[in-house]
Amino acid sequence: MPTTFNYHTTVAWKNEHWGHLVCGNGAAMDFSAPPDAHGHAGVLTPEDAFVAAVNTCVMMMFLWACERFKIPLVSYECYAEGTKIIELDRTELFTKIVLRPKIRVKECDETRVRRALESAQKYSLVANSIKSEIILESTIEVVQ
Amino acid sequence: MPTTFNYHTTVAWKNEHWGHLVCGNGAAMDFSAPPDAHGHAGVLTPEDAFVAAVNTCVMMMFLWACERFKIPLVSYECYAEGTKIIELDRTELFTKIVLRPKIRVKECDETRVRRALESAQKYSLVANSIKSEIILESTIEVVQ
Repeated sequence: MPTTFNYHTTVAWKNEHWGHLVCGNGAAMDFSAPPDAHGHAGVLTPEDAFVAAVNTCVMMMFLWACERFKIPLVSYECYAEGTKIIELDRTELFTKIVLRPKIRVKECDETRVRRALESAQKYSLVANSIKSEIILESTIEVVQ
Repeated sequence: MPTTFNYHTTVAWKNEHWGHLVCGNGAAMDFSAPPDAHGHAGVLTPEDAFVAAVNTCVMMMFLWACERFKIPLVSYECYAEGTKIIELDRTELFTKIVLRPKIRVKECDETRVRRALESAQKYSLVANSIKSEIILESTIEVVQ
């Protein structure tokens, strides 16, 4: 039997195109749609939450992989871009997410870092739970 | 040719199991893993971001559907719970998301509200982009 865990959030409509989100782990914030879909700038949107879920999950799994692979990580930063298409029947889909991690490590074989990154993607809960193709374009720098 | 749009976020590792997230629409916050996975309480986690992406997206699409279906919405609140399983090979997957919207409308046919909710799910970008089964358990109350 596989082990199961539950995670929850609650949203509430405030007014117009504004909502308030409360997450199970305690984070809380207003949200809206993107400005080009009648929403507001400066707050979380469903699109950003989706791309953030992938981006944050792969990073957390990479930290875990670095611990397992004994990689002395110096810095990790990752720009992630999700591409949405609108089909002719007006349904929408995130077809791909490109992740561009910039990784700096101390005196470490670059191949080991690549293996850790592949491992992070393989074990990422969010990466496994989405239909979008995930493309990793990493930059690895080994520093003294 | 389908129309395409891009959405981006950036994450950066701070230290230990802490990261910082900056979203394309302007929201910015610290994040971590869930406390039961070596993370910290009180901040965003990838798991919460994933469930929030679905929950916020379906709400925004429901607001849009209410406008189209001319439904006088009084209130909308939705608890969403995502179930993760850990497979024997230790990969993880969100198998289902249960959404429990509590909807109050003014003098309106309940069937129309149900149709609007189905429409919200059908046109939700995030709902369409995930592998998890989505289960809607709605409560609709018509008030004077």
